[in-house]
Amino acid sequence: MSQNIKKLSTEPYKGVRDFYPEDQFIENHIFGIWRKTLESYGYQEYNASVLEPAELYKAKSGDEIVNEQTYTFIDRGEREVTLRPEMTPTVARLVAGRRRELAFPLRLYSMPNVFRYERPQRGRLREHFQLNVDMFGLAGVYADVEIIDVAGAIMKNFGAKQNDFEIKISSRKLLNALFSDWYQMTEDQSVRMQKLIDKKNKMPEDVFEQQSTEIFGKPFKFLNLEKNNPLYEEVMAFPNIKSAKDELDLVISKLAERGVNNVIYDETLIRGFDYYTGIIFEVFDTSPENNRALFGGGRYDNLLKMFGEDNMPCAGFGMGDVTTKDFLEVRNLLPKYRPSADAMICILEEDDGVISYAEEVAEMLRKKEGDRESTNIDINYSFKSLGDQIKSATKKQIPYCIVIGKNEAKEKTYKIKDLETGEEVSKIVKK
Amino acid sequence: MSQNIKKLSTEPYKGVRDFYPEDQFIENHIFGIWRKTLESYGYQEYNASVLEPAELYKAKSGDEIVNEQTYTFIDRGEREVTLRPEMTPTVARLVAGRRRELAFPLRLYSMPNVFRYERPQRGRLREHFQLNVDMFGLAGVYADVEIIDVAGAIMKNFGAKQNDFEIKISSRKLLNALFSDWYQMTEDQSVRMQKLIDKKNKMPEDVFEQQSTEIFGKPFKFLNLEKNNPLYEEVMAFPNIKSAKDELDLVISKLAERGVNNVIYDETLIRGFDYYTGIIFEVFDTSPENNRALFGGGRYDNLLKMFGEDNMPCAGFGMGDVTTKDFLEVRNLLPKYRPSADAMICILEEDDGVISYAEEVAEMLRKKEGDRESTNIDINYSFKSLGDQIKSATKKQIPYCIVIGKNEAKEKTYKIKDLETGEEVSKIVKK
Repeated sequence: MSQNIKKLSTEPYKGVRDFYPEDQFIENHIFGIWRKTLESYGYQEYNASVLEPAELYKAKSGDEIVNEQTYTFIDRGEREVTLRPEMTPTVARLVAGRRRELAFPLRLYSMPNVFRYERPQRGRLREHFQLNVDMFGLAGVYADVEIIDVAGAIMKNFGAKQNDFEIKISSRKLLNALFSDWYQMTEDQSVRMQKLIDKKNKMPEDVFEQQSTEIFGKPFKFLNLEKNNPLYEEVMAFPNIKSAKDELDLVISKLAERGVNNVIYDETLIRGFDYYTGIIFEVFDTSPENNRALFGGGRYDNLLKMFGEDNMPCAGFGMGDVTTKDFLEVRNLLPKYRPSADAMICILEEDDGVISYAEEVAEMLRKKEGDRESTNIDINYSFKSLGDQIKSATKKQIPYCIVIGKNEAKEKTYKIKDLETGEEVSKIVKK
Repeated sequence: MSQNIKKLSTEPYKGVRDFYPEDQFIENHIFGIWRKTLESYGYQEYNASVLEPAELYKAKSGDEIVNEQTYTFIDRGEREVTLRPEMTPTVARLVAGRRRELAFPLRLYSMPNVFRYERPQRGRLREHFQLNVDMFGLAGVYADVEIIDVAGAIMKNFGAKQNDFEIKISSRKLLNALFSDWYQMTEDQSVRMQKLIDKKNKMPEDVFEQQSTEIFGKPFKFLNLEKNNPLYEEVMAFPNIKSAKDELDLVISKLAERGVNNVIYDETLIRGFDYYTGIIFEVFDTSPENNRALFGGGRYDNLLKMFGEDNMPCAGFGMGDVTTKDFLEVRNLLPKYRPSADAMICILEEDDGVISYAEEVAEMLRKKEGDRESTNIDINYSFKSLGDQIKSATKKQIPYCIVIGKNEAKEKTYKIKDLETGEEVSKIVKK
């Protein structure tokens, strides 16, 4: 071994994943459901480079993403470059850049990989893929309702039942109005309190009590602004609170009209980013073992401001591939792996005529013809025994094999065998 | 404007592209043809992160990719990371890592984005997408033939005719044998001469003559080892030359048997990378305005060596999205843009009953039912005049609109209009 001075590791870079065919099959399933659902609502796919000018992320003041959590480096032209940690600043850049040419309302989606420099842990890798959905240019509840409806439709298209998940909903507008008008907080207190509430689930009750007292002068108590709350009428007498709560109720009732009945108002919902300006929501797994937020979004009307543009209504959400996969795994909703080949052609003799005929059959089957679908054909050039070739097809999980020897080449026929049942069949059916 | 202290640019990072929906539509077309063709031959998709340990690229000795041309940086854990400049070292890493579990021959493809730090110019951006095709574990001409056949099939599936492109082919094995046995070069001379020939097309004739004299002692003349060459018999008397030339001829004749007739032997073909060990090929555009290499590949049996693994036969090629798009553009083979929405629902009144019914129709049409395909529906919530809504559909290039007002909601009907012909139609046909 002393001669092997350069034996490299086969491990990937820390915190990122390799996608072998079985893994990529799952990714493609997730991407496929995302794409199919979004396009069924008329959303258009866009994309951009993973490399962005670092300044794009400096403009934001959100606490969640700070510079220590991004991959940022200086290129050889002295430019500061960041591997995008999220897609929202990018889509805002694209929309601001062609605001005058684009047709609004603009429905957009993308499935980019995004990067965070953080300690790898379950569901939080350094690189993951994230569906990004945005509706630009439509003010009012119709955009909010559609976005949340789309989120639910994705879950259903993955095979989830409505009671497998619930949609928690709140409103930044309502929270701001409550904090300023009912709780009588200053703007600074309101911002600090919302940041504290955002971290509430990660701290013991007494720490929350102590820290909220530091901000507010006394321990903070949630209102639970529902009709059965004795304070309801009194709180709703504040016009800003009433208008924000009415809007939220309208979104919930319109979702119910569309059959989305698993929507729950949750005052403790904040979502980390500062840029939300209206409705916010999170989709939760209802499974007791995995009761956590799967993904979420909301309304953010100020996105284009950093490009010197006027505000534009925008609602949207993001959904990661890792949490999605975990959810589907727990719920047993992942599809069984299928290789791309529908059939393997087993050539019985290393004979030019037989090989040529086998290739002719493969070429013919690869094309769609009449009512025959195109099928994907793997040709086995090992010239081993039929038993060995079938073993190879089985190891590759290819469902059919087509046996071609001298007789078949002479008579221009071929036999198809279903490898699951072991029986001879008359045609290949996509499995 | 003095208050706008932070007005960001909407430009992307230098040398990379933004993909607005029209651009992404073209990318998806290219990715779709790549995927469809590769899967029809039973190739499996894999992927990996864009982040790779920098050492993966240091092991290679090829001149084409030197470290100044990669994006390499040190992460906060003092690891040296590179944005992959090509996919071959990655696929070698994946195969070496699971050599014992994988089923061979292993047909793999991927469509990664790869990065080069270089001056942006036509067709050579800092980031582009590249189809990578590899067949591992099959020695001999069948792998070479299949790989080149697949390259031709991709071109045909893009709509190119056989005379739109030609496939130049050569063999590293043949070149090595010619240089050592016929030209009597030392190994060092042979390597230097191949590197010089690789750059031949970029230098004046007299510079090539002078530099080849420096290496070889006299100006280098190509042999053109074809049957009509008077030296043919004499050269072919060297066993290593004969066996390499026979193998090359076999590949060419087997391709012709499969109907691939535009293959030309070209002794001046080298391909930059050192890792080729057998057949090499390049697909050339035959158009006089764009007569250049579109893509290429070959055989490289030593890939796994850097991981301390035994050699494994491997043949493959890479094909970039930018050169592909340029070719398709020149040949007028790009598809016309279609938005994802097949139809826009125009709601005539802002009335809860009408809106509900419109959403019901949308939901119904989005689902596949009986012999009706699923259709993608954009709902227009502007509540503007029908004329304005149709104008919006036209601007978005949506082919149909569905008009829903109070009457339709009451009678549970709807009208479909073909926006190209202006006529009322009975059903939506995917355009």
